[in-house]
Amino acid sequence: MSASTHAAKRQKSSKDTPYNLIYWPGIPGRGEHIRLALEEAGADYTDTAHQKDGVNEVLSRIDDSHTGDDLNPPLLAPPMLKHGDLVINQTPNILLYLGPKLGLAPKPGDEDEDGIFVVNELTLTALDGLSNEPHDCHHPIASSLYYEDQKEESLRKSKDYIANRLPKFLGYFNRVLKSKASGDGPWLYSGKLTYADLVLFQCVDGLQHMFPKALQKLQDTGDYDGVFALHAAVKERPRIKAYLASDRRQKYSLGIYRHYPELDLAD
Amino acid sequence: MSASTHAAKRQKSSKDTPYNLIYWPGIPGRGEHIRLALEEAGADYTDTAHQKDGVNEVLSRIDDSHTGDDLNPPLLAPPMLKHGDLVINQTPNILLYLGPKLGLAPKPGDEDEDGIFVVNELTLTALDGLSNEPHDCHHPIASSLYYEDQKEESLRKSKDYIANRLPKFLGYFNRVLKSKASGDGPWLYSGKLTYADLVLFQCVDGLQHMFPKALQKLQDTGDYDGVFALHAAVKERPRIKAYLASDRRQKYSLGIYRHYPELDLAD
Repeated sequence: MSASTHAAKRQKSSKDTPYNLIYWPGIPGRGEHIRLALEEAGADYTDTAHQKDGVNEVLSRIDDSHTGDDLNPPLLAPPMLKHGDLVINQTPNILLYLGPKLGLAPKPGDEDEDGIFVVNELTLTALDGLSNEPHDCHHPIASSLYYEDQKEESLRKSKDYIANRLPKFLGYFNRVLKSKASGDGPWLYSGKLTYADLVLFQCVDGLQHMFPKALQKLQDTGDYDGVFALHAAVKERPRIKAYLASDRRQKYSLGIYRHYPELDLAD
Repeated sequence: MSASTHAAKRQKSSKDTPYNLIYWPGIPGRGEHIRLALEEAGADYTDTAHQKDGVNEVLSRIDDSHTGDDLNPPLLAPPMLKHGDLVINQTPNILLYLGPKLGLAPKPGDEDEDGIFVVNELTLTALDGLSNEPHDCHHPIASSLYYEDQKEESLRKSKDYIANRLPKFLGYFNRVLKSKASGDGPWLYSGKLTYADLVLFQCVDGLQHMFPKALQKLQDTGDYDGVFALHAAVKERPRIKAYLASDRRQKYSLGIYRHYPELDLAD
């Protein structure tokens, strides 16, 4: 498919071109999945979360008046990644772009190049059930309302999430980790670390902040040992370990994974 | 990344190998996005929705006892696509796999090969705001509960969705359609039909079934003319038109887009 109707041609960026992450300051948020991939790979990147006026770049790019450019449509929400003249959004999409470049997913021409679709599906499933659903536990009615204005509904949803959904998703990933396709070692697919592992790590890490009692109780059952072993293995990766100890890693606050003790219904 | 720890090697399937869609019978559902791409391309495919015992194939593949195979991990939910020895799930992931093969997205080696990340991000955003959120309008608390058991919360969420979220997402896609990057004609990206257009079509179509009054009112404002023109243009594609008139197109019922008149809060 050519870009014949475009006024300009896209120039492909080298993997040595720095990556620019455009995301809110003050929370790990969805941007954290991107950061972990860049950090694990030791990639050269900038992050608006740590730049003076960085928040204004986020705001201007998602403003209704932003029309994109000749090559890139306007974007609805961060995280966004700028790499050369490509500007894209959507967490799993950015990871899909970065993964093969950073050595964190199969790339075209590899013997198992279609493995990228396995890594992508695992990422999408983790984000659905272990990031989007937790967010909705404290905002089940409307993201524009305060938590306090939807607290009754949050209690009801969190109770169901912890009792039914969380075991379902953790159990699923544990099954994936025990499957032949996962290969040897602690990783989800093909015996190698991929960005899907980093995503699952961050989801479990966030959930441990959000629902500490419930997560401990689930861990104590022993039914999800593969998932918790993966979390521990990612945490010990040398670059991840250094990153988590640095001030580039932001603290959980009012983002996706919020700790409201009344929602941590661990009985 | 090699698959050295795998017991077996993945064989790449030709685009002439038939595609097998594995999805629930009785609803368009998320499987519909896959069907529309296959139908637009005139591809050779099978569909468990129309096969005797097809539902059992879905059920067996998502059963906790299913361990996947040497190459593919177990999958959590349909839609699933089997193509040769690859078995994948997640709607946007299946479309990502199919799109370049069916001529519905840029493919590796194309001048604009990175355009696949634009098509993918638009698809993800449409599914987030115009498929997942509508589903949550009738199931805001728990997908395992009946609508009737979360009706009050559904009313509250639908009211916010129609007043705030729906205009936000339709407005966003209208801006994309007006952007330079969309090129000429009714399509979202590069002046050509991509699977993102088919996804947006299906979302609008489903929402018209779910919230007929609200959608009509939004259409009457004229603020989203690009989106409704895209919907009309897809509907007139010869293969899509024939498909929609066939019994392969299933009726909306108790899937994502459900018509509960009390939720169609159009003022």
